[in-house]
Amino acid sequence: MYPSSIKNLIESFKYLPGIGQKTAERMAFSILELDEDQVNSFADNMKLVKEKVHKCSVCNNLTEEDVCSICSDKDRHNGSLVVVDDPKTVFVFENLHIFKGTYHVLDGLISPIDGVNPEDVGIYKLVERVKNEKFSEIIFAFKPSIEGETTALYIKRVLSGLDIKFSRLASGVPMGADMEYVDSLTLERALSDRKELE
Amino acid sequence: MYPSSIKNLIESFKYLPGIGQKTAERMAFSILELDEDQVNSFADNMKLVKEKVHKCSVCNNLTEEDVCSICSDKDRHNGSLVVVDDPKTVFVFENLHIFKGTYHVLDGLISPIDGVNPEDVGIYKLVERVKNEKFSEIIFAFKPSIEGETTALYIKRVLSGLDIKFSRLASGVPMGADMEYVDSLTLERALSDRKELE
Repeated sequence: MYPSSIKNLIESFKYLPGIGQKTAERMAFSILELDEDQVNSFADNMKLVKEKVHKCSVCNNLTEEDVCSICSDKDRHNGSLVVVDDPKTVFVFENLHIFKGTYHVLDGLISPIDGVNPEDVGIYKLVERVKNEKFSEIIFAFKPSIEGETTALYIKRVLSGLDIKFSRLASGVPMGADMEYVDSLTLERALSDRKELE
Repeated sequence: MYPSSIKNLIESFKYLPGIGQKTAERMAFSILELDEDQVNSFADNMKLVKEKVHKCSVCNNLTEEDVCSICSDKDRHNGSLVVVDDPKTVFVFENLHIFKGTYHVLDGLISPIDGVNPEDVGIYKLVERVKNEKFSEIIFAFKPSIEGETTALYIKRVLSGLDIKFSRLASGVPMGADMEYVDSLTLERALSDRKELE
């Protein structure tokens, strides 16, 4: 019923995460309201991202260069490595402006139930890197989950011969959370990880 | 902090209705997960919609032709005209497969408070069309609102010399609605428009 170009654009919008028919329709119609310049730059930006952005050859972070700006900054190689399972986490950390070391991005987390093995998430690239660079501490910054713990423990075991401290982010009740809405797993972890007052 | 192509694409996604920074970031990253073919067709579909789709020269509905498929279908000229204020409403009606007449799409509704006058919403193009074509009934299918009623009454007055029946969609409690959540204006209208049981 829609003109075919609108119908095709609706289908394209449905590629996006969480976008169903209705929202895709609304978005496709909104494209008609933009200036031609805006639409052209939108479409070009989409192609450019796909063309230019790829993984850093050292850490797998997203970059337009061969080696990302963090890996190529000598001052960042301070012995601390944050390991994440999603490049977005790197940007979240960088926006904090607190961590001054380097990162390594895995392609997901080990999950034997789903048939995701260490080699599927790029653990051996990390292991090689750790053996060649000098790190004093590796901090796992995965989403708290069984898969996150499995992955952290696996990496720790593989690297156990090296003189490295392994840690993970603290888990617990988020700042500002209403206690009544905290789920039981989080509360259990918050209790077992409780900190003594000084 | 993001590579510049990702940053630009995030800005582009923010052109879309209801899309803020966080959602735009999620969408931009999701583009990286699509195949190159999908991204190219997405971007091309966007440009094509903007290039090809324009208003039907008769009814203002969106079309890729000079005259839309409804206006050019002789069987649809049955004397009934549905007037809407948004081309999306035409597609909603067409999906019902119930109405067999033609449409006219205004560029919005008259709203003296917002300085939107009859000429701003294209009423005179509708008036010309009604004077030239033969219509027996004009049905206003605007969202129930002060502006919708103002617009309908204005058009009725301008066309008052012609032998045409004017009507509007019934307003009232939506099918399946919980009575406790029906707003007072809707309930007032449902009461005053009540239908006698037969």
